[in-house]
Amino acid sequence: MKHPLEEKTIKTEQIFNGKVISLQVDDVELPNGKNSKREIVKHPGAVAVIPLTDDNKIVMVEQFRKPLEKAIVEIPAGKLEKGEDPELCAKRELEEETGYICGEIEKLVSFYTSPGFADEILYIYAARKLRKIENPAIPDEDEFVDVIELTLEEAQAYIEEQKIHDAKTVYAVQYLQIEQLKNR
Amino acid sequence: MKHPLEEKTIKTEQIFNGKVISLQVDDVELPNGKNSKREIVKHPGAVAVIPLTDDNKIVMVEQFRKPLEKAIVEIPAGKLEKGEDPELCAKRELEEETGYICGEIEKLVSFYTSPGFADEILYIYAARKLRKIENPAIPDEDEFVDVIELTLEEAQAYIEEQKIHDAKTVYAVQYLQIEQLKNR
Repeated sequence: MKHPLEEKTIKTEQIFNGKVISLQVDDVELPNGKNSKREIVKHPGAVAVIPLTDDNKIVMVEQFRKPLEKAIVEIPAGKLEKGEDPELCAKRELEEETGYICGEIEKLVSFYTSPGFADEILYIYAARKLRKIENPAIPDEDEFVDVIELTLEEAQAYIEEQKIHDAKTVYAVQYLQIEQLKNR
Repeated sequence: MKHPLEEKTIKTEQIFNGKVISLQVDDVELPNGKNSKREIVKHPGAVAVIPLTDDNKIVMVEQFRKPLEKAIVEIPAGKLEKGEDPELCAKRELEEETGYICGEIEKLVSFYTSPGFADEILYIYAARKLRKIENPAIPDEDEFVDVIELTLEEAQAYIEEQKIHDAKTVYAVQYLQIEQLKNR
């Protein structure tokens, strides 16, 4: 059944096909019958992991983000390969970026990051029973990260200082706060 | 001082300049001296509001999102106009989308939604002491929303059912959960 707020596609113009994203502009018919344009970024989707140590720290990575022209501290994450299972992707990114493997992994939530202009979906997992391995898988050749472990209080201070400054990592810090409030 | 992970821009190619976003591809020099390409979406930034009623419900809006080809339930939000103050933008979007004005507004956090490929930043506010007004400002002409008020438990069920399915609204639900856990 057609949703009453649905916007019908009249025409799609393909603008760009890149390595990570593609861009199209859709002409749409609005619920009131008028026309408008929607600029839409297509993305393969991504996975992020909240790696929790036995002493309740989150393992994060510092990474330079070209769109922001600064380095920020984030939970490990990466794009889904075509057809890849999100849980396997989560384990792969955890190992590649931090050198940890996990004994337990749990799916927490998925969300769209920017539903106004992009279809990127992010699957978020919690990983526990972490173990450092000797010869971890190697990250993508254009990826450079530093690993850091933060307590809840340190992570909250990093949010204040905008060293942590992205949606998925703010989610991760709230997740740890909720876990600790529930268990107090 | 140059960050050790910094990626130096060698060349920027402008691909698209739209109504909402623009797209460029940067050739960069990586920390190891090799070159790579970064696909970068530029966005003016946005503001979202968590409108909290006196009985602890969150006011949300249902909206069709063309990139997802589905309607989802979100906290009120909108793009920043050029030079607009984020707090004024938050009040404007609250009134336009829900018909509420607020007696109290508090900045909570800001975060980048998709730092891998976009510079979109989102400023999030909590709004309290809500009051319905008779002739609210009118939303953008291509914006159609339905207003809905949810308790924490209802909002959590909406996340399970993926009716709530975006980063800022998941943040808002966690925010309310933390507030309630702190006050129990």
